[in-house]
Formats: sequence, C-alpha cells, structure tokens
Amino acid sequence: MSAKVRIEPRTLRGFRDYLPAAALARERLIDTAKAVYKGFGFAPIDTPALEYTEILLGKGGDETDKQLYRFTDNGGRDVALRFDLTIPFARFAAQHTNDLGLPFKRYHVGSVWRGENTQRGRYREFIQCDFDTIGTESPLADQETALVIHELFQRLGFERFTIRVNDRRVLNGLLERLELSERSVAVLRALDKLAKIGPEKVAEELTREAGASAAQAAGVLEFAALTGKNEELLARLAPLVQGTAAGEAGIASLAGLLAGAGAAGVDAARIALDVSIARGLDYYTGAIFETFLDDLPGIGSVCSGGRYDDLASLYTKQRLPGVGASLGVDRLLAAMEELKMVDEKGASCPILVTCFDAASGPDALALASELRGAGLGVELYPDPKKLGDQLKYAARRGFALVVIAGPAEREAGNVQVKLLATSEAHVVARGDVAQACARLLAV
Amino acid sequence: MSAKVRIEPRTLRGFRDYLPAAALARERLIDTAKAVYKGFGFAPIDTPALEYTEILLGKGGDETDKQLYRFTDNGGRDVALRFDLTIPFARFAAQHTNDLGLPFKRYHVGSVWRGENTQRGRYREFIQCDFDTIGTESPLADQETALVIHELFQRLGFERFTIRVNDRRVLNGLLERLELSERSVAVLRALDKLAKIGPEKVAEELTREAGASAAQAAGVLEFAALTGKNEELLARLAPLVQGTAAGEAGIASLAGLLAGAGAAGVDAARIALDVSIARGLDYYTGAIFETFLDDLPGIGSVCSGGRYDDLASLYTKQRLPGVGASLGVDRLLAAMEELKMVDEKGASCPILVTCFDAASGPDALALASELRGAGLGVELYPDPKKLGDQLKYAARRGFALVVIAGPAEREAGNVQVKLLATSEAHVVARGDVAQACARLLAV
Repeated sequence: MSAKVRIEPRTLRGFRDYLPAAALARERLIDTAKAVYKGFGFAPIDTPALEYTEILLGKGGDETDKQLYRFTDNGGRDVALRFDLTIPFARFAAQHTNDLGLPFKRYHVGSVWRGENTQRGRYREFIQCDFDTIGTESPLADQETALVIHELFQRLGFERFTIRVNDRRVLNGLLERLELSERSVAVLRALDKLAKIGPEKVAEELTREAGASAAQAAGVLEFAALTGKNEELLARLAPLVQGTAAGEAGIASLAGLLAGAGAAGVDAARIALDVSIARGLDYYTGAIFETFLDDLPGIGSVCSGGRYDDLASLYTKQRLPGVGASLGVDRLLAAMEELKMVDEKGASCPILVTCFDAASGPDALALASELRGAGLGVELYPDPKKLGDQLKYAARRGFALVVIAGPAEREAGNVQVKLLATSEAHVVARGDVAQACARLLAV
Repeated sequence: MSAKVRIEPRTLRGFRDYLPAAALARERLIDTAKAVYKGFGFAPIDTPALEYTEILLGKGGDETDKQLYRFTDNGGRDVALRFDLTIPFARFAAQHTNDLGLPFKRYHVGSVWRGENTQRGRYREFIQCDFDTIGTESPLADQETALVIHELFQRLGFERFTIRVNDRRVLNGLLERLELSERSVAVLRALDKLAKIGPEKVAEELTREAGASAAQAAGVLEFAALTGKNEELLARLAPLVQGTAAGEAGIASLAGLLAGAGAAGVDAARIALDVSIARGLDYYTGAIFETFLDDLPGIGSVCSGGRYDDLASLYTKQRLPGVGASLGVDRLLAAMEELKMVDEKGASCPILVTCFDAASGPDALALASELRGAGLGVELYPDPKKLGDQLKYAARRGFALVVIAGPAEREAGNVQVKLLATSEAHVVARGDVAQACARLLAV
C-alpha cells in the first residue's frame, strides 16, 4: 500500500467514547433501573432523537434554547436534537394518550444533547433515565415515586442514602399566611440560595427582590430553618400553614409519604422531610424529591423529581397531571466509581477458555459450549499463543477463572481450572468442569 | 387560562415513537442479544451520536454520504450524525486498541440516522446491534460468530432458522482458476443478481461487464448453481478451486465452520453452505454469514456479517483484521410480530393491585411491596375508581393477575386473585398471597 493520508481518529469536544469497563458499569446501572421501573408497572417508550425545533423550543428557557443542536435537514425542515426527555414525553403524551389511556406509567432511557460549556466539566451528550406516572393526582402515585427511588438505590447496592422530600404546597401555605403569595417566585428564588449564601443575604434578597418586610423575611427564614426528625418537623410545620388549603394539603401529602414508606417497609431513616428543598421552581407543584448519597453529599442530588400540574399544555388542551423523577446516570456512575462500587476491568463474562493449537479448536468449542449450556459466560481465546500471554490477557481483562485443556490434560481426561485472583489451580475431571466452575464462581 | 396557541404534536417524517408494547418487544430483543454477546465474552462500548464529518465521510460510498444528517455546530465544526456503527467502531479501534489490547471483542447497540427515501418504507432513525472480534485471523473467531448467531436465534425463541455460510476465498479460488481474478468485482456484482434476474441475464452481464468468455461465464454459473447437503457440496466445490491458495483456504474455512458448529452441538440442519451468498462485495474477505427465518424467507437476512481484512485503515496504520455480524433489529421485530411471537399489550409486569379508597393506601402499598419482595412485578392502580373500570384497565394493559383487597376481603383476612385470561377468581389467605400469585403465574 502506498503512503496514505489518514484521518486523525478523535471525538468532538464534550463527547466521549465508552470503553468496556465504563460501558458495562453504565449498562448494569441502566438495566437495574429498568428492572425496578418495570417492577412497579412502568413501561418503556422511545421517541426520536430529532424533533421539529418548534416542539423543543419555548419550554426549556432561553439558556436551553441557546444550547440546542439545531439545523435545517435535507428536506428544509427546522430540526433539533432533544435536550431532555421531558419535552418529548409531553409531545408523546399529547399525541398518544387517547390510544394509551390513563393513568399512564412510562420510563424512558435515552441520550440527550446540549451544547454546554465544557469548561464546567459538562458533557454535550448524556443519558437520561426518567420515570413518570401521568393522568392521576393520587397521593399513592407520589408515595410510589419515593418507593421506586428507594428500591432503585437498594438494588444498586447503596446502603447509605437519603431521599429528601418536601411539598411545594407547604411553602405556598406559609406564603399565604405571610401574605407573600403574589411574590412566591422571587421568594423561592431567594430561598433556593440559602445553603450557598446564608440567611442574612437571603433576608436582604427577600427584601430587595420580593419586597418582603422584616417580619415577612423573618417568617420565611424561620420556616426554612426548621429541622428535626420527620414527625417532629411535621408537627412544627403544621401550625405555620394552618388554615390554608394549600398548606394543609401539603402537610397531608408529607404525612402520606411517611406513612406510605412505612407501610412498604422502608427504613424510616432513609426518608427525610426537608423544607429547604425547592427545586424546579416554575414546574413542580406538589411533592418534591431529591436523593443524596450519605457518603458523598457534596455531589448533590442523584435522583430528583416531583409532582406537576400539567405536563403537555403546549401541545394539548387535555390536562395531564403527573409525578416522576429522573436518575442522574453520569453523576451516579462517577459516585459509584469514587465509592469503589464499580469493577474497573472490562470482562463481560467470568471464564476464559485458553487455546492450544488449531487441531484442538473443536474440543475448545465443545468445552465452551458445555459451560455456556450450564449458564456460565465463556470467552474462548482465539489464537494458539503462549499460555503465559493468554494468562496475561485474562488478568488484564479481569476474568475470574481460566480453563486450560491442553494435550496433557486431554489425555488424562482432565482440565485445569485456575482462579486468577489467587493463582490457585484445580485439576478436575473433564466431565465435572461445569459444576466445578459454578462452584468456584459462587465462592 | 385564555385561549392559547398550541403546537401540533407530531414527529418528523421517517421518525417514529415507540409505544409500550413495541418498546417492550424491542427491549427484550436487545436484552437477549446483549446477554448472548456477553456470554461469548463480547463487552459493550459506546461512541457519540455526533462525529466530525471527515470521520464519517468517504468510506460509506456516495449514497451514504448524501444521506448524512450533516450540519455546522455552534462552534463552527462540520459534524454529522453516525449512519452506522462500523465506522465509529473503526475510529474507536484506531484510537483505543493500544489501551485495550487485542484481541478485542465488542458489541455495540445504538441508534443511527440516514436521510433515506421514506417511500421505500425505510426509517430515518433505527437501531443497530453489532458484535465483532478484531485483532485475530483465527478461524475459531469465525466459528464462534456462527455460534453467537445460533445461540441468539434460539434464545429469541426461533425454532426454524438457517445460517447460510460462504467464504469469499472459495469464489476467489474459482476466479483464479477461470482467469477472472482481475475482474472479480464485476463478476461478484453480476452474481449477486442471480436470484433476481436469473442465470441467462447474469451470463449476459458477465460477458458485457466482466468481459468473460462464454466458457468463463458458464464456469461461474456452474459454480453458483451448485447445491447439496453441506458435506456433498463441499466435496463438489473442492475440485473447482483446487490448486489455488485462496480456494483451498476457503474450503478449509467452510469445513471448519461445519466442524465447529458440530462440536458445539449445533443441529447440522441450521447451518447451510451456500455459494450464492456474496454480500459486502468490497468489504468482506473471508467467511460470510446470512441468517434466514425458514417461515419468512422473503424478508431476507436478519443477521449478516463476515470476516474482513482490515477494519480501520482510514485512521491507523495498524492492521486490524476481524469478524463480526449485525442483527437487523427492525426487520426481526417485524418478523416476530408477523409470527405472533410478540405480546401485543404493554404490561411490563404481571400483577395489578386494585385501589379501594384513600384510607386503604398503606395496606395496598404493603401488599404490593410484599409481592415485589417475592420477585413479582406489581402495578398499583392509583385511584379509587369503580372496580369494573380498574378491571377494564387491567385487561387493556394485559396484566395476568389482578389482586383485589377490598374492605370485605380485609375483614376476612383474605385477598381475591383474579386470572384475567379466564376470569377465574381465587380467594386466598392474605399471608399466602405472594405464594399464590407465583403459583398462578407459573402455570
């Protein structure tokens, strides 16, 4: 071949390849999420990566609009890549709920694209993993949302995590009592900064931006400072919102969340009322959920959501109230890596069968096939390289067992099974190999 | 709310939503493929949906280039959506095999985009599901490719399917003997039309386009007409290519594929030598695979692949030979639908627990949680609607069982378990509900 101009292999800034270890960890995470969602009756849906731009614009806010991957397709259509799964779901619901009926419970796992500033460590392509129940205002659906999150983190192997819950209506009740209802957006915006800037600066902002009196600002801050165990906190909150319909509904909602979790056998310590969480200011209208890893609180919430009044008002006049949450796949994977919960190697199955020579190919295939028939995943090394090289490959890839069936073993009717972690070798009869491997893997 | 301008909810032409039943069927198919791939040691990878256009251009041919979703991003980069998973894998391999080592076995499931003519019933967004072994020329890797395909179709529930195998080198050997090697591309192109236009027209094309003499054309057609059981066919092929290195390598490769499948316990009728398959003219260089459903031969191959000499020569000077195949997800799903192998409803779990009133919420949550603890998926109906409405919902969604625990049942310490298929109702003790449901589902 003559000298050839090659193209430099590279990915776009803000995009990334997933190598096997990372891809396996992500696949396990997503498979677990899907299994949990299905176990609560959520069914998968999918929507196109590309949509008409008019579908995607307008709801996400100016910043999101600027981040759109938007272009004109070959047919002259103004199109864009979806930047979240919520707007496509709203469009989907408007289009299909007549066929699907309500209530409708869906999960959706898919890539989304945002032209983010990569200096903030953000990626421009990432996966979202959402579940929602629409077409019902039942508190049971809110309570099950918390149970889904709980089950998910348990199944992922987390022992120390806390689901913080709040209800927007409690705050609404307080603001009604303080005569600040008209300025609730400004109040919530100020309150949302409490952890970052402290109560004094929040008081200043309440006065400046929400026109609150000193007494009103003090009332808001007194409320936000309330802490305590769930039942105590609930008892302290109740009088602050008494007599307001919203506040009393909010208190009942929170009490229901606690009772529901208790009835389902959730450890009470894993659910924490927290009146300071105030996410999705202009979106959530009832229960709000955030999930924190107790060992890594600094990374923020890894699964968040809440109840909303109307999903799809941009596309249909049918009101679609609902509740749902979104798993932060990337953030959670980073956390699992930091907590050493991720296998760093890329083996997708536990056993490597070595290769001796071309003539022993059928024997090796028969052996591998037998092990697979017993439910054990097996990779067959394809080339008759030196055994040492094959063992090095096995160690690098992270196999648990190496099965060696060379001419000497074959003659004796044996195989050698090597545990890579300890270099321990077992000689077992050829006929017992599946059983022996299963036993060694179960240890 | 005042009258509001709504946006018409619609998808782009050539794109589609997946509703739950279709999404579930697709997810099951892909999960099965992934499990099979992993069971042979293939590990997942992922690459970005968007790449620099220069990476994607040039290899796919003019038609593919025209179909690219290509645009300039906000940073002024010339970018495009991937149109297959092979070119991204080539780029990935060039970039990462130094870190990953060889042999390298990967699978990749992901969406690809092509601005196809939708009048041909094609979609512009579809999923590919590929597996490849690179960095080895071992016939064992070819043999395992056939075994992966076999295992996959078995696990998907197909009983009647045939993996047709050929080897490009057999044809090369024949052309060498016929002194047509220099015109192999034109010969293969003509041969590829055999099923469509018949031997006479192929003979004309061989003469016209490949400059073949009457004797040469007859030799090619005699070869292509060879049929027979695997061993007979192999015996008939051998003399036609004898004395050519390529032809003898091809015959050995086909004999190896048969022997390997036999050693792994594959039913001999499922593998069929077929010298007429000639896919990927300018790409495949050794073994070639196509998979046909015996009950729907007309839909064409549902899993195709083969061996290639060099995956990534556009991006690296390192030669990367390999072998792999691609599952036709859409075509296969359509076939499974036609063969009534797909559940047409969208229930993602088998049991619906009905809802009576707000007060019984905690009881219902406890019941659902108990069933889930026993490994049974449960949806809880969220609203206290009439039982008849809840049963209608259950029937439409396709649940297998409905568990009813109303006030009467609760008082008696019972629950009612209804089989939707037969309307048969069982009254079981509250404490036995998980066991009873598991038993009824196992029937």
